[in-house]
Amino acid sequence: MIDFRSDNTGKAAPEILAALVEANRGTALGYGGDDWTARLQQRFSELFETAVRVFPVATGTAANALSLAALGPSWGIVYCSEAAHINTSEANAAGFFGGGLKLAPLPGMWGKIDLAAFEEALAGVAPGQIHKGVPSAVSLTQATDLGAVYPLDEVRAIAAAAKARGLRVHLDGARFANALARLQCSPAEASWRAGIDIMSFGATKNGGALCDAIVVFAPGLADSLAPQLRRAGQTWSKMRFSSAQLIAYVEGGLWLRMAAAANAAAARIGKALQEIPGVRLRAPVEANEIFLELGSDAMDALERDGFRFYRRSRTLARFVCRFDTTEAEAAALAAALRRHCGAG
Amino acid sequence: MIDFRSDNTGKAAPEILAALVEANRGTALGYGGDDWTARLQQRFSELFETAVRVFPVATGTAANALSLAALGPSWGIVYCSEAAHINTSEANAAGFFGGGLKLAPLPGMWGKIDLAAFEEALAGVAPGQIHKGVPSAVSLTQATDLGAVYPLDEVRAIAAAAKARGLRVHLDGARFANALARLQCSPAEASWRAGIDIMSFGATKNGGALCDAIVVFAPGLADSLAPQLRRAGQTWSKMRFSSAQLIAYVEGGLWLRMAAAANAAAARIGKALQEIPGVRLRAPVEANEIFLELGSDAMDALERDGFRFYRRSRTLARFVCRFDTTEAEAAALAAALRRHCGAG
Amino acid sequence: MIDFRSDNTGKAAPEILAALVEANRGTALGYGGDDWTARLQQRFSELFETAVRVFPVATGTAANALSLAALGPSWGIVYCSEAAHINTSEANAAGFFGGGLKLAPLPGMWGKIDLAAFEEALAGVAPGQIHKGVPSAVSLTQATDLGAVYPLDEVRAIAAAAKARGLRVHLDGARFANALARLQCSPAEASWRAGIDIMSFGATKNGGALCDAIVVFAPGLADSLAPQLRRAGQTWSKMRFSSAQLIAYVEGGLWLRMAAAANAAAARIGKALQEIPGVRLRAPVEANEIFLELGSDAMDALERDGFRFYRRSRTLARFVCRFDTTEAEAAALAAALRRHCGAG
Amino acid sequence: MIDFRSDNTGKAAPEILAALVEANRGTALGYGGDDWTARLQQRFSELFETAVRVFPVATGTAANALSLAALGPSWGIVYCSEAAHINTSEANAAGFFGGGLKLAPLPGMWGKIDLAAFEEALAGVAPGQIHKGVPSAVSLTQATDLGAVYPLDEVRAIAAAAKARGLRVHLDGARFANALARLQCSPAEASWRAGIDIMSFGATKNGGALCDAIVVFAPGLADSLAPQLRRAGQTWSKMRFSSAQLIAYVEGGLWLRMAAAANAAAARIGKALQEIPGVRLRAPVEANEIFLELGSDAMDALERDGFRFYRRSRTLARFVCRFDTTEAEAAALAAALRRHCGAG
Repeated sequence: MIDFRSDNTGKAAPEILAALVEANRGTALGYGGDDWTARLQQRFSELFETAVRVFPVATGTAANALSLAALGPSWGIVYCSEAAHINTSEANAAGFFGGGLKLAPLPGMWGKIDLAAFEEALAGVAPGQIHKGVPSAVSLTQATDLGAVYPLDEVRAIAAAAKARGLRVHLDGARFANALARLQCSPAEASWRAGIDIMSFGATKNGGALCDAIVVFAPGLADSLAPQLRRAGQTWSKMRFSSAQLIAYVEGGLWLRMAAAANAAAARIGKALQEIPGVRLRAPVEANEIFLELGSDAMDALERDGFRFYRRSRTLARFVCRFDTTEAEAAALAAALRRHCGAG
Repeated sequence: MIDFRSDNTGKAAPEILAALVEANRGTALGYGGDDWTARLQQRFSELFETAVRVFPVATGTAANALSLAALGPSWGIVYCSEAAHINTSEANAAGFFGGGLKLAPLPGMWGKIDLAAFEEALAGVAPGQIHKGVPSAVSLTQATDLGAVYPLDEVRAIAAAAKARGLRVHLDGARFANALARLQCSPAEASWRAGIDIMSFGATKNGGALCDAIVVFAPGLADSLAPQLRRAGQTWSKMRFSSAQLIAYVEGGLWLRMAAAANAAAARIGKALQEIPGVRLRAPVEANEIFLELGSDAMDALERDGFRFYRRSRTLARFVCRFDTTEAEAAALAAALRRHCGAG
Repeated sequence: MIDFRSDNTGKAAPEILAALVEANRGTALGYGGDDWTARLQQRFSELFETAVRVFPVATGTAANALSLAALGPSWGIVYCSEAAHINTSEANAAGFFGGGLKLAPLPGMWGKIDLAAFEEALAGVAPGQIHKGVPSAVSLTQATDLGAVYPLDEVRAIAAAAKARGLRVHLDGARFANALARLQCSPAEASWRAGIDIMSFGATKNGGALCDAIVVFAPGLADSLAPQLRRAGQTWSKMRFSSAQLIAYVEGGLWLRMAAAANAAAARIGKALQEIPGVRLRAPVEANEIFLELGSDAMDALERDGFRFYRRSRTLARFVCRFDTTEAEAAALAAALRRHCGAG
Repeated sequence: MIDFRSDNTGKAAPEILAALVEANRGTALGYGGDDWTARLQQRFSELFETAVRVFPVATGTAANALSLAALGPSWGIVYCSEAAHINTSEANAAGFFGGGLKLAPLPGMWGKIDLAAFEEALAGVAPGQIHKGVPSAVSLTQATDLGAVYPLDEVRAIAAAAKARGLRVHLDGARFANALARLQCSPAEASWRAGIDIMSFGATKNGGALCDAIVVFAPGLADSLAPQLRRAGQTWSKMRFSSAQLIAYVEGGLWLRMAAAANAAAARIGKALQEIPGVRLRAPVEANEIFLELGSDAMDALERDGFRFYRRSRTLARFVCRFDTTEAEAAALAAALRRHCGAG
């Protein structure tokens, strides 16, 4: 079996588990009062070139939902892409943690938010009206849920449109490392310098094990987030074990190396697909995912060959490359796709 | 510094971290579709001598709040001890996850619920009335938050009173292992055979690292719990790493050995205190915690001697023994208490 | 000024206010324990030809949101038309009262739910999955928010598709009387006999004053609704004054006469529009509303002539006829539309 | 039958219903855009001698719960008397509308909050801690739920203690008129001048029919309240009919005359009780309620004599006087109490 099912079927980076084990010495104050968590704040503040607050959380869903709950009132409207994970795959955690907050999905290419659609939606909600809720935030996903990556100017333009109306800006960075590896820019450029107020900082999908994080850029947000995380059961009492994972994740550029490896495997497959006439990708392959329109015959054939992937619909297959996807596995899939997709 | 601050300042059992590292091989289906999580179901069903559903969660707060949310409607009343962690220390997570559910604290000795007080409270809410909410569950803490342990007949009596009115029964087992080590009974006897429908199965406070669990006994509860956990951001995509911890926690009786060690250290200190005239314990030392009424002079003196503990009020000190509290540390504290509490 | 702005700008039927005043005699038990509320149950049970439970509420938003909260779990998905009032104009009350419940808007003609789109949406949510929430109900609006009326066989087909998947069926009957006046069928045929489990029974938009109602058909729903209404601050202590309004509303067919008058006025205008070349209606005029595509020149001209209406967008005008819209007012608008819409 | 059951079993003042009927002329913009609602703002601003915002709502429960939701975050702690209606009788509406907000009941005499107990509770919650929630508001009930009235200096002292810690102050004024009639002070003195930020302005219990109100004193609160009321289904579209009631309620001092009549009836009964040896009142009779410790024989005898009242427990009877309680009724109850309580 060769596994292209999901980012989360893969292993954790051994470095991360080693750091977790290494943190198991001495006693340490609970609920984040330990040295590892203090170091995490410092390390990420260096990484992002500004003073940030970092909160380890168990999952990306927790990171997203609690970030959005912190950004606005419970009667807020949060704009996002139709394809956004928060809209399609998180059991409405945003609406739940947000106390009734409403997601307003917007159309766009390749899992992105279309700027014009966003502006039109904002224009349709008069300030002061009481019937629709109050626009409070926009959530961008970078890399997108269809495997594309926003150029920074697109992020900036959406953030600017949001701020012109007093909205806050959230980044769902479940695959932030993959986006950075693609964009070849700094974490700061891809986040707060582009207008992001708060982000879900993903690790699990890129070689992490048991935690992701919320990174807060905007002053004032962190204070209200702390009790909300505690209440959400997301504040580990032995937090050193999660903070140690996150420090190891970024140490020495590990996260970017892992993301680059996953992206490279996907790019190799994407390149092979370009050479096959009639092949239709749902979005350009810019990160570690490939969304391919395929007939069921071709899907069946790939499975017979031992490949595992998700059938997102009867005609859409998703292949995910992980940090531990080997070159041989990528080459094998590319070859198999050439065999089975030829006739389109 | 000798640390008696909390269960959560201690280390994790090396066996648990080793199991976590060992789980890092091959690919595995996400969100609990892996072999480790399947094995966890089987292992705990053997342990509890009945078919149970086990859901790993990040914290005891998540276990408690989501268990209670699963037990009754959002307009439910959940009875608990005044001293219960859910009432005093979890930022009203139960009320939040329960959608407005209300905790009704009851008096009782040593952190327990007084049966008569419970029955009187139930009698005060007429069936069918709409003004108070609807009694839906009772939550027992075992061992209690003051370090005592309910004898099984007391658990059974409260559970029976609850069921006579159609209420469900939750057990907050943050220190369940410590209670078992004291009661010398089986997990089954201390839980479903005594009337428990669902329990928070604690590991963190007893040598765990990053997860606790919900164990569901009552048929039908698990199905509604699964989407609530997913929505709560408590469903790890790489769940193998948490399931492996929980399997290792109980493997070969590790959990009971650790709890017995912690209890023994506390008992040693408790025994020394009994020999000091005038010393006042808030509750009998039956698990791993000691709640001692102390003047501030005595507290200051203990701190000067290098001991760390929590001042729960100006006159109440809490000392917690952990699985990794050494005999020497316990002996040292006993000696220091003899020195400083004599004049008590 | 001739007012076509909304149903709610109109007067209340004098009969309804007279009944309210007439209820002001003697003392009466609070919170629905009075004779008027008992009579309301009986009167509506006769009207609907089955035993129903009726709960007066302050507004249609309360009726909708609390009905939907009663129909399913807080992790439920409720399908509705994109144009549904619950989706566009109630500040996400359904998501709030539903504890995080998610509305899933569906496309369709004229404010209706398209059956095929509904079935496709249901097919996209696998039973037992945890990532999307659980489909729990569908909400139909009758008459629709664009002024059309579902034929009964369409209602039945959507209800049947829902029930085949275990979903409940809600009817937003803010303009139920207008729909009945159009369909010329009995209240029973248009509701529970067509598969409706619970309905928002509107009065305010059709000559009511200060209350609407929830009518419960499905056994078992009412018991959980009562404490939710109390908690929502929707259970009047002097309920006789609201029950008396609702009794008067249906007494002697008043509600249907008022709805027929409003529909007739709208039909008169609709007929005039059919005779104007190039005029484009957004939906057929089947109840008391007219949605007309108009240029801003024409809208300006109408306002200069003294007509008031809502501009739903730069190119869409809404004209609402009320029970107290006079024939002369309708004729005047028809004439003005002929004058200003000629050139289209 | 002579009815002393509750404030809400009585009639509405005819003046209020007449005003409602009188408002039924012409068309009027919906959702509070009408002339009556504008006049209500002006009239209450005069009454309170400061610019206030007034929001009509259906019930006192809605007024309380939405006021508290507006005062603080969903992780807030709201202090109140143990006997407060929000704590005992509103189905935890405050916890629900507050998104998980927690009520912290405090002891005190006669349904009041004891200042020392309040200060001790505040001292027990360290600023910045995350485990208990964040103290956000205190709610006073005036007159109290046991029929007493806070002197203004007690209100001021509690408000000052709250503000010293950054908490907001809510007044549950379900019987505000009765308190004013007792205190013989102005509405301003009893509210914002004493430190109240927002109040539930009761009318229903004092001759109202179908609405109470929220009165906002603190700048900034009203803006977030408006969408919350809309979402709560508490924003009537034909708001003129509720605003007209509230204007009539205060017009010419009607509210104070009605409250004075109710208080006088209660005082008459209270005076008679003072003359009976051995009689025990739960609280002094300072408003329109009498809480009397009575044996069940005496309660049975009163019922045989035709009196109706609430048995709050087996040994506590509540008698409520209303604006329409006649002198003869009060005299009859006083006489009956003399007959049956003698052996008390």
